Amino acid sequence: MKMSIKKLAKLANVSATTVSLVLNNKPSRISESKKSEIKELAQLHDYEPNFSAINLVMKQSKTIGLLIPDIENLFFSALAKKVEDELRQEGYSLIFVNSNDDYKQDLSLLKNLVNRGVDGLLLTVANDSIKHKSSYESLLKRLNTPFVMVDRNIGNPNHPQVFFDNKLGGYMATQYLIEKGYKKIACLSTKDISVNGLYRYEGYVKALEQAGYNIDQSIVFSGDYRFQSGYEIADKLILENCDALFAGNDLMAYGVIKRLRELGKNVPNDIEVVGYDNLEFSRMLGLELPSIEQNISDLGKKSVELLLNIINNHPVDTVIELKPTFKKY
Amino acid sequence: MKMSIKKLAKLANVSATTVSLVLNNKPSRISESKKSEIKELAQLHDYEPNFSAINLVMKQSKTIGLLIPDIENLFFSALAKKVEDELRQEGYSLIFVNSNDDYKQDLSLLKNLVNRGVDGLLLTVANDSIKHKSSYESLLKRLNTPFVMVDRNIGNPNHPQVFFDNKLGGYMATQYLIEKGYKKIACLSTKDISVNGLYRYEGYVKALEQAGYNIDQSIVFSGDYRFQSGYEIADKLILENCDALFAGNDLMAYGVIKRLRELGKNVPNDIEVVGYDNLEFSRMLGLELPSIEQNISDLGKKSVELLLNIINNHPVDTVIELKPTFKKY
Repeated sequence: MKMSIKKLAKLANVSATTVSLVLNNKPSRISESKKSEIKELAQLHDYEPNFSAINLVMKQSKTIGLLIPDIENLFFSALAKKVEDELRQEGYSLIFVNSNDDYKQDLSLLKNLVNRGVDGLLLTVANDSIKHKSSYESLLKRLNTPFVMVDRNIGNPNHPQVFFDNKLGGYMATQYLIEKGYKKIACLSTKDISVNGLYRYEGYVKALEQAGYNIDQSIVFSGDYRFQSGYEIADKLILENCDALFAGNDLMAYGVIKRLRELGKNVPNDIEVVGYDNLEFSRMLGLELPSIEQNISDLGKKSVELLLNIINNHPVDTVIELKPTFKKY
Repeated sequence: MKMSIKKLAKLANVSATTVSLVLNNKPSRISESKKSEIKELAQLHDYEPNFSAINLVMKQSKTIGLLIPDIENLFFSALAKKVEDELRQEGYSLIFVNSNDDYKQDLSLLKNLVNRGVDGLLLTVANDSIKHKSSYESLLKRLNTPFVMVDRNIGNPNHPQVFFDNKLGGYMATQYLIEKGYKKIACLSTKDISVNGLYRYEGYVKALEQAGYNIDQSIVFSGDYRFQSGYEIADKLILENCDALFAGNDLMAYGVIKRLRELGKNVPNDIEVVGYDNLEFSRMLGLELPSIEQNISDLGKKSVELLLNIINNHPVDTVIELKPTFKKY
């Protein structure tokens, strides 16, 4: 016979809520001897709690929802792993959903997670959600579920959030190229599709202005974070006589370098490229690519910490900014 | 006022179960006009179903659990994305957990998923679970939840499963090297830690035997699927005068090639290497690495199809073998 919480409650002569409180080690007025009795009964009858039942009784599911834009992106798979690991240590399971960076999926998945009764949400919103800020905000306002925006926000600095200083990253990458004496430093930017891309671009502008360079829009190119968009602008770098490039991520930098080499150019001697993400594949495959590194492990850890603090009503700073670092290679 | 299933049932003058059946489009004896009335009431009151409540009433959660060993591994992140995408199209959400390839985590996460009342399980078991086959089997036997083993089994050919023919992959890789005339073909194998690694090794042995080569255990090396384990055996390839290597995956091949180049060797002229996985990073970073490709999208799609067929009691073949292909580069 499969043991249920109700049967267990009857055997122990207490309510189902009491059983649930005791087995979940929640504060209650139940005597220690009664607690032991209930725990022993549960063990004796090989009782495995049914989380859906507990969910309704306890109003908590011990589940956190993680919304990410693309699990195949190395940044987000590393983040998901860290988050899952941190949550498990705290006794939580992770429900993970993937929006394919699509605003409508974002909203529908978010509602779905909330309807499933997760205790909290870690949200890395789709890049195009920024265009729908007001409907997104109105949904967030109606949520009773605590949430933390991770890595990306939707232009609201007041939400609980953990993020990297992307402007600093763009600034450091460009500053490195300025210090090496390059005169025509291009930018392959994702500012048109991503808030973080915009911040990285602002860092590029800040570094150039500070050093007395003109901002030349004819060498600011549009990319989409993918290899191909880097590959496609390499020819233009040569046409415009650029001697250096700050690429918004490593994948685009890989595309640029692949094409530059096909065109007979030497990297970094003819054109030096700086990336963003510091992917380990560069070193594995012998590419000496300077890059901006974001500590993903730190991002995951801090995001989980913040969310659990909010869930448990601990008073904390709810806006956490992390600093990227420059890696020469 | 937040609308609940109970309040809605009261308004419609039916039971909560009836409301649940109707809103989930489940077969019932309720009249069409009553169905319309209930749906209109739900819409009018902006009712969003509480999945935990539905779960208890309907005995189904519209959630599938996916157990994978390592979300940072590109094979599994691509698989997770495909699975999530396929499931979403069928109206299911995905609960995703990560075992870190650890047997104890495997069992504990599996129980956790079952206790959360998932409708089905997609299981890619930890590599070391094979050593604990009997306790794993006894757990699976007690499960009432349908499951499909994905990519890896625990040595039981009768479980519902979707997997690649790894022996064929190892055979094709080795056959390619034999046909190119290499005489001393080494193997960097994961046979000691993985069933799929063992099959790949068996394919290597089969191809060599068929071609009349001796199997020389002094050039069969142990790896762990990681870059570093490839890097570390490169020196031995030279010591043993090997002219070719079949590496059990691309990451280990990257490690071997990195070190061979550091030692002044040319790949493929001095030593040719074949990998497994056909990672796109090879092409991105200009490495012409022949490799065995497994169609991960196919694996995800077929696994979801099989699981949903089992859940819906459709009669189907429950053991599906997929074929890998050889990619010259």
